[in-house]
Amino acid sequence: MARYGELRERVFEANLALVRAGLVVLTFGNVSGVDRDEGVLAIKPSGVAYDELGPESMVVVDLETGETVAGDGRPSSDTPTHRVLYRRFAEVGGIVHTHSAAATAWAQAGRELPCLGTTHADHFRGAVPVTRALTTDEIYGDYEERTGDVIVETFAERRLDPRETPAVLVVSHGPFAWGAGLDDAVENAIALETVAAIAIDTVALRADVAALDGALHQRHFSRKHGPGAYYGQPR
Amino acid sequence: MARYGELRERVFEANLALVRAGLVVLTFGNVSGVDRDEGVLAIKPSGVAYDELGPESMVVVDLETGETVAGDGRPSSDTPTHRVLYRRFAEVGGIVHTHSAAATAWAQAGRELPCLGTTHADHFRGAVPVTRALTTDEIYGDYEERTGDVIVETFAERRLDPRETPAVLVVSHGPFAWGAGLDDAVENAIALETVAAIAIDTVALRADVAALDGALHQRHFSRKHGPGAYYGQPR
Amino acid sequence: MARYGELRERVFEANLALVRAGLVVLTFGNVSGVDRDEGVLAIKPSGVAYDELGPESMVVVDLETGETVAGDGRPSSDTPTHRVLYRRFAEVGGIVHTHSAAATAWAQAGRELPCLGTTHADHFRGAVPVTRALTTDEIYGDYEERTGDVIVETFAERRLDPRETPAVLVVSHGPFAWGAGLDDAVENAIALETVAAIAIDTVALRADVAALDGALHQRHFSRKHGPGAYYGQPR
Amino acid sequence: MARYGELRERVFEANLALVRAGLVVLTFGNVSGVDRDEGVLAIKPSGVAYDELGPESMVVVDLETGETVAGDGRPSSDTPTHRVLYRRFAEVGGIVHTHSAAATAWAQAGRELPCLGTTHADHFRGAVPVTRALTTDEIYGDYEERTGDVIVETFAERRLDPRETPAVLVVSHGPFAWGAGLDDAVENAIALETVAAIAIDTVALRADVAALDGALHQRHFSRKHGPGAYYGQPR
Repeated sequence: MARYGELRERVFEANLALVRAGLVVLTFGNVSGVDRDEGVLAIKPSGVAYDELGPESMVVVDLETGETVAGDGRPSSDTPTHRVLYRRFAEVGGIVHTHSAAATAWAQAGRELPCLGTTHADHFRGAVPVTRALTTDEIYGDYEERTGDVIVETFAERRLDPRETPAVLVVSHGPFAWGAGLDDAVENAIALETVAAIAIDTVALRADVAALDGALHQRHFSRKHGPGAYYGQPR
Repeated sequence: MARYGELRERVFEANLALVRAGLVVLTFGNVSGVDRDEGVLAIKPSGVAYDELGPESMVVVDLETGETVAGDGRPSSDTPTHRVLYRRFAEVGGIVHTHSAAATAWAQAGRELPCLGTTHADHFRGAVPVTRALTTDEIYGDYEERTGDVIVETFAERRLDPRETPAVLVVSHGPFAWGAGLDDAVENAIALETVAAIAIDTVALRADVAALDGALHQRHFSRKHGPGAYYGQPR
Repeated sequence: MARYGELRERVFEANLALVRAGLVVLTFGNVSGVDRDEGVLAIKPSGVAYDELGPESMVVVDLETGETVAGDGRPSSDTPTHRVLYRRFAEVGGIVHTHSAAATAWAQAGRELPCLGTTHADHFRGAVPVTRALTTDEIYGDYEERTGDVIVETFAERRLDPRETPAVLVVSHGPFAWGAGLDDAVENAIALETVAAIAIDTVALRADVAALDGALHQRHFSRKHGPGAYYGQPR
Repeated sequence: MARYGELRERVFEANLALVRAGLVVLTFGNVSGVDRDEGVLAIKPSGVAYDELGPESMVVVDLETGETVAGDGRPSSDTPTHRVLYRRFAEVGGIVHTHSAAATAWAQAGRELPCLGTTHADHFRGAVPVTRALTTDEIYGDYEERTGDVIVETFAERRLDPRETPAVLVVSHGPFAWGAGLDDAVENAIALETVAAIAIDTVALRADVAALDGALHQRHFSRKHGPGAYYGQPR
């Protein structure tokens, strides 16, 4: 059996789930999963068509050094961004990057995605933030690693908890979403695109719509998260 | 055979119809049906993926007490809202709750959905109303039950007949639709999303569009409803 | 073999083509075809789900009297509109009525659909007109027949040729499209929805966009229509 | 084996890929491929439904004379435009013309498609330009050939390299995209429609959004293009 076979199998399946959910056009987008005991992540290879992928195409990369430790292909060019997020966001088990249409429109507009309703509050505490633009030096340096850094900086400056706000909009680029596991990461990416699309129509209907009332936001968020959660089945 | 087998079967099928109609993303949304002789409703379990559902997963709940009387899972967290609606709207046989995109955009914008054409008038008399926001006390109390109450309050204050306007937009949340039976409830949920989407484009094309002329509204509504109805086949 | 079997078969197939093209939600919409030698049209029955239809469900109606001459069901409630159009527009062989989303948005906004590009010009000469609203008397009288009359009036007042502009937007209602045959009618309905959707985005990008230049319009229209047509294969 | 069998097979497959990608409605759109050694292009026949096409339906036309050298049908009416582009853009191996919705909306609005994010920058250097309108003389002359000329003129005046900006918006008409090979051409057409749709939502969210920062644009473009490219797998 291939090395890291189970991790690669799960990452492969998560990449397919992204396609089935309609979040991916061409080869835009990639999913990774982490094995913290082994200190590695597995990720989609760069620029390969989804119908040519199998579990064994997933590339396994060392979290610290970035070296490929299993797999024949070149890992996604966004791998350094994933590595930064895994190293700095300790609780993250899976990361999804897409150019999904509605979330990307907010990112391109340079607007954070405000929480306008309970669909959003069920998944994200408060607005999904948008990063600052990278400087020219950052762009011409280790661009993908700096993209990870600016995400971490955004969460630090706004005192956001990546477990509670498991997504970000990279300005002029697109969304990253994550979760404790791969399934959560994929679900959050789908939820993000869904609420981003509804929010576009909401602001078209009321340009000055206010963010959700704090009490309602807290109530909905805590239906799904934390000790008093009562959404879903007992585990 | 399972208890309430026929009711659960029909509720299961209605939940699937919702998915087929594209009204559901992830696990957002639920359908319930009522058996008034038995004093129970059957509803989707909370937070379970649609492809893991079967008729036997439907949870049967006592209309008055809210206690589960059949089924292993925890019922949808929105069950108290459904219970209020069945108790207060005597003619309702099925209820559908979704976060369908266009109707949710109107709900998030806090705008009632005006009747802008005959597609709307065929299903809903007048605007589909939007509720007031819940107070903080209501949110931190029995939130889902208060959501039912504010729907009932909205219909009472505007003197709306829930048989004639079988849907509502819960502000900052999303739509509920209902009907005399499960099929009607699903049809009304689909019709609501359809007219909500067309209405978004209509107001983009003419911001000050007026609601449908009263005579035309009455004519279309009565083609389908009441003693002079002549739409569809004789029953 | 059933009476008018071939006509009913073709009308049935055209109704299905409408569904496949995504123009129909629920039971909104109907297609009819005419047999002028027999003086009859065949049309979808009223309010029957598409998956319950077969060729033999198509109802055959006398063009002049409106009486059903074959078929068990009640014909579409819009049948009187179709009858007027067949009687007054001599060259029409098939008629499609839908509530397709984008065309209905223009109809609800009470705006004619301007010709904004060659996709439109390939199918329709000039704007697709929008009718005036019916008067209260017309609405409470033979409503569906008056709907046909106001379409004919619209074409007469604007000196439009129904062969060259094979569609109309009935204000606050939705589109009708037609053609020399059933295939043309279905194609024109699809083309109408397509150009209506593109036009919504076009006016969002440039509110004051001008209608297509007359020469370009003429050129594109005549690529497909008239003696100098050179689009498609020789027949 | 049919003449030019391999070229026609590839052009046929590329036409189908366009349909699968959802870029084509009815018979709008065509793909061609070139064989520069033979001095011919192969292209879809005019106005034939996609489900009636096979490799042998592709029409082979002489690049210089425009004469059909293989195939029974009449070539796409847009063939003269394709011929101009192949003759003047020496590096182009495949050309795709569609009326895809979002790109056509920009073309109808007469607006170039600005580069608003990295999805765009990955495929196109700078804005995708929009042509000037043809004059009446050009329209009534060899219209399709003049359409090719005005594309070439647009690239010359703006000093654009068709290898770096492999698409154009023909004003009031729709997009053409191309590439070194057929696969590239199809990919660029899909990418164009994708970024055009996201850009519509972006400008709705921020009307005065600025084009992408030059450094970020250069970085993303060069991830995929040129000697330092590191996106995708080594070839």
